[in-house]
Amino acid sequence: MKKSNTSPLGGMQELLPRLQIEFDRCRHDIEEAFLQHGFQRIETPTIERLSILLAKAGGETEKQIYKVVKTAECQDDADQALRFDHTVPLARYVVEHLNDLAFPFRVTQVGRNFRGERPQKGRFREFYQCDIDIIGRNRLSVEYDAEVILTLAEALRRLPLPGDFRIRVSNRKLLTGLLEALNLEQHASAIFRIIDHAEKVSVEKTREALEELKIGSERVTKIVDFMNLCGDWRSMVAQLRGFNLENAGFREGVRELERVLQTLEVWTQAQNATYEVVADMKIVRGLDYYTGTVFETILLDHPEVGSICSGGRYESLASNYTEQKLPGVGGSIGLSRLFYILRNFGSVTESMKMPVDYCLIPLDETRSVMATAAELAQKLRRNKHVVDVVWGQKKLGDKMKYAGKVAERAVIIGEEEVRLADQGGFKVKNLISGEEEILMV
Amino acid sequence: MKKSNTSPLGGMQELLPRLQIEFDRCRHDIEEAFLQHGFQRIETPTIERLSILLAKAGGETEKQIYKVVKTAECQDDADQALRFDHTVPLARYVVEHLNDLAFPFRVTQVGRNFRGERPQKGRFREFYQCDIDIIGRNRLSVEYDAEVILTLAEALRRLPLPGDFRIRVSNRKLLTGLLEALNLEQHASAIFRIIDHAEKVSVEKTREALEELKIGSERVTKIVDFMNLCGDWRSMVAQLRGFNLENAGFREGVRELERVLQTLEVWTQAQNATYEVVADMKIVRGLDYYTGTVFETILLDHPEVGSICSGGRYESLASNYTEQKLPGVGGSIGLSRLFYILRNFGSVTESMKMPVDYCLIPLDETRSVMATAAELAQKLRRNKHVVDVVWGQKKLGDKMKYAGKVAERAVIIGEEEVRLADQGGFKVKNLISGEEEILMV
Repeated sequence: MKKSNTSPLGGMQELLPRLQIEFDRCRHDIEEAFLQHGFQRIETPTIERLSILLAKAGGETEKQIYKVVKTAECQDDADQALRFDHTVPLARYVVEHLNDLAFPFRVTQVGRNFRGERPQKGRFREFYQCDIDIIGRNRLSVEYDAEVILTLAEALRRLPLPGDFRIRVSNRKLLTGLLEALNLEQHASAIFRIIDHAEKVSVEKTREALEELKIGSERVTKIVDFMNLCGDWRSMVAQLRGFNLENAGFREGVRELERVLQTLEVWTQAQNATYEVVADMKIVRGLDYYTGTVFETILLDHPEVGSICSGGRYESLASNYTEQKLPGVGGSIGLSRLFYILRNFGSVTESMKMPVDYCLIPLDETRSVMATAAELAQKLRRNKHVVDVVWGQKKLGDKMKYAGKVAERAVIIGEEEVRLADQGGFKVKNLISGEEEILMV
Repeated sequence: MKKSNTSPLGGMQELLPRLQIEFDRCRHDIEEAFLQHGFQRIETPTIERLSILLAKAGGETEKQIYKVVKTAECQDDADQALRFDHTVPLARYVVEHLNDLAFPFRVTQVGRNFRGERPQKGRFREFYQCDIDIIGRNRLSVEYDAEVILTLAEALRRLPLPGDFRIRVSNRKLLTGLLEALNLEQHASAIFRIIDHAEKVSVEKTREALEELKIGSERVTKIVDFMNLCGDWRSMVAQLRGFNLENAGFREGVRELERVLQTLEVWTQAQNATYEVVADMKIVRGLDYYTGTVFETILLDHPEVGSICSGGRYESLASNYTEQKLPGVGGSIGLSRLFYILRNFGSVTESMKMPVDYCLIPLDETRSVMATAAELAQKLRRNKHVVDVVWGQKKLGDKMKYAGKVAERAVIIGEEEVRLADQGGFKVKNLISGEEEILMV
């Protein structure tokens, strides 16, 4: 009977109403956690100047930008495209509204971003991201890195995850400092990429990839030793100090990592948190713009799905748009992808709760019956109930069938009920148990 | 200090955090009213197949569609564009998921749509629309038209409007039937356009425009008489019957209008509603796809801003995509435009409430101070309070200055407070009144 292809485009998420309820609940729980930690909501436009987006995008991202064609009536506008993340529009927003914001500016954006990637299972081209960022003016203490991680962890705790999670923290200054000390700056991006990739391949493959750089086996060993460091922060800090590197950046990295992990320890203890926080030198966050703390999060029982929440510290949010130094730290939960994962694990299923509390079924269309239905609906809605009314002249059986699909309870309203209503009572049929109840309103 | 243009693109709404709070509140209140009336939320993708959008769009709308350029990695996809309303994606959604939905399907979509219009004050190119629709399978009783109007009115009632509003209702079958009876079918779209435009020009101009059609002054008078009908439904129905038209469509239009207005009367009386509902033959909803009931809403004290909420009945939602008959009725509140109007009238201003309830200020970074702050934050957040923590080694004065900008209360935590905390008490500075309070947790 269909005349055309009505499936959504590839890479787009489209949910039935009962799953949408669960998606909305996840989104709500995340946002509530963010707001309770003092983050303020903003919304930036979906469409931005292409020049603004290209100032940051590079490599893969640039190839994935959806450009927007100017319409006949907007010919004089700048070239435009859909935003691919929340960070670039945030940078523009902060510069634009610099004098109207209080710093450190705690900000959250929850919305849809767009990347025209090759189709892959569980990857979306239009996807929800739930971001938080804290932006300082000139400086921003390193404890805010811990604050961002704590806030994201609290949001994750509220979601129906299959088991607990582990937050893996590192600091970019460590690897950068190590490479400086080993005179390997010119190989930095290659080495970052190899470490970022290390968990997807065998230990031998990683070593081979490093050896292909022809940097000598001693330096390869140093790098492999470094990237394998992982564990409790006290032992980690001791081991990093044991590297005895005379590099200022490396030493600052150790101090920052120590401070972030110490802060996280105090706070997670106060919360009796069950999630784990570890230092892990394999975390580099690819070729992103991070300059200090970096973190990723894995599900303990399902590390194979990769990071479900990540972020880090950037020295300057908006250096492309302003001379003002705006250091920041942020992180993001990729909700569309995470929701897809939770559905696959069966952690999320269609809402079992009926969307409607009371389905009112007027038996005829006389004024008194209608008025009785209207007054009952009014009272129930005032008490925050969801009320549906079945209109029209269908058979009662058909109306009850509809009610059974959407509602927990049905109230049939005919002349008898009009009389009963004068005494404040209604016969209610519980559609789940099949029992009759009397509702006094 | 700015290096590039950081303003949002023309036609995009971008709010400071304190106004965003008010926007979010309006959006929440509207959605809550919709949900309480049994409408189920769905979200459709922002990007759709161009062929799906063009199947409905026509005339002006088509010129305003933002096309999206396929990225290098999505070359095999269909041509794409941004949705310009919620109705077209809904039609596709209902056809796609036909067997998984319960009919009549009460559905709401709240999200951003896109039209690349010429720039105008208070018109946005990216704008929020809050839609509800009820879709039947094969048939849908006319009382559902009243249900949609009642639900939208309830949503409007919850908004900070400047004064009350009037809902103006008509039925397309009346004008269509009149033109049939007058043998004016071939002029129908011209006449629809003239009536739709009538309120923006003088009475004479409208008459002149009709006379230019060369249809004879008797028929012009009939049309002018018809379009000037407006008022209470009882007198209106009597006057329409007084036209004595032997046209089946016209008669059906009278019956439908009567039934819709009768239903609205019973329900608004039960709610003690203060808004007005009138029948008004000037309402035609332009060249839209409506086939029965049509309605618009004006602010009583500010009719000049035009309709703030409108919609109507369509005989077949998805005739472009399926043979299945899916009659529907829907309506929409254009939230971005309405919010702009409310700001202009001063009905909405920046939220005066501070976003943060308690701002915690640790005096130093010893473990005991940090642990005390962490425990207090945990307890307050568990009680649904918004808690911010000011980190780092700034001066206390600077920290208090920040707190004063974002928070209602500040709690300074030093060694003394650690001792006090053991007895469960904290000294709290109320930043609004300046007074000190003791908080027992």
